[in-house]
Amino acid sequence: MEEVEFTKDSMERLKQQIEFIVEVDKLKQIYRQTYIADGTRKENDAEHSWHLALMVFLLAEHTFEQKIDILRTMKMVIIHDLVEIDAGDTYCYDEAAFLDKEERERKAATRIFNLLPADQAKEIWELWEEFEEVRTPEARFAAALDRLQPLLLNYASEGISWQEHEVRRSQALQRNNYIENSSKVLWDYALRILDEAVKKGYLKD
Amino acid sequence: MEEVEFTKDSMERLKQQIEFIVEVDKLKQIYRQTYIADGTRKENDAEHSWHLALMVFLLAEHTFEQKIDILRTMKMVIIHDLVEIDAGDTYCYDEAAFLDKEERERKAATRIFNLLPADQAKEIWELWEEFEEVRTPEARFAAALDRLQPLLLNYASEGISWQEHEVRRSQALQRNNYIENSSKVLWDYALRILDEAVKKGYLKD
Repeated sequence: MEEVEFTKDSMERLKQQIEFIVEVDKLKQIYRQTYIADGTRKENDAEHSWHLALMVFLLAEHTFEQKIDILRTMKMVIIHDLVEIDAGDTYCYDEAAFLDKEERERKAATRIFNLLPADQAKEIWELWEEFEEVRTPEARFAAALDRLQPLLLNYASEGISWQEHEVRRSQALQRNNYIENSSKVLWDYALRILDEAVKKGYLKD
Repeated sequence: MEEVEFTKDSMERLKQQIEFIVEVDKLKQIYRQTYIADGTRKENDAEHSWHLALMVFLLAEHTFEQKIDILRTMKMVIIHDLVEIDAGDTYCYDEAAFLDKEERERKAATRIFNLLPADQAKEIWELWEEFEEVRTPEARFAAALDRLQPLLLNYASEGISWQEHEVRRSQALQRNNYIENSSKVLWDYALRILDEAVKKGYLKD
């Protein structure tokens, strides 16, 4: 009898989880301003999140933070853009859109995360807030990669997105200082790329 | 002096890692036979891998395996399709293409994984082989999700892909028995979806 009830409960939980999993498929339709490396089209949030998850475990050795929790950081980057399903991608140099970004995103989080069973909705909320607040070593590293990844793609695609938005080196520098807060070697690398991008005419000085 | 050399070595490692990270951006251009949930276009491998990584930590409670290592399973699904950058996506019901799949994929793994520093190339090889051999609890769970995710998308997109390939229920059942090997509740759920799909005419009986 107990086993039957357990199975029934599991099935109820699973239904909620599956509803969430199918709903967030929409992340594949949220396009960013960054192009994929070959420059043929813009990247979407699902692809971007996959790329970050890969970078988390390959590059974790370069952070100067002590003992980061790699699993938590991977979960964080996997879910960090889900709110954009409702709130849209806010381009990092669009100051007007940033004014109500927080409100739009909190509303989105409330609708989307609460499709999950309460304990998992709470876990995702906490991961998302941790990412947004950038106050833990894991969140600082995730934020660093979230800046480094488009930098790599902008450089690989010969700066298409920088040129479309007339981004200057000083803006890119300011935007990317999250990298400096997590890793010296990644920051050195980022600075070299920006210099090279200016030299090649991908980015305005 | 030692610190300077350490930094120089770090930069060498980082360069190899970044080369790999930019190379595998190509995963975003490898299209599968499955459509995204709204049926508007096919899904690519990077999006698929992101979706699996999310499913790993949300659904891990449903496996009947004891103590699966969630981090290892997440890494596994993040890298499981990288070989398709060179070897292409082999459609699961294409028997002819399966004949030389292993050879094509091993060649791809050799080229792609070896862009990384040796220790990380080895880690990725081992994760990929573990996934392919489906012999550990983590690999069984990853394989189960790798079958469940397209099942969910096929159902959500009203069976477009099943219809394009004239897939029958018996084929889908056989293909999906990996789910049965990892989770009773996921398998029950998968069976219900297949029944419902036949009832709605998405899948042939």
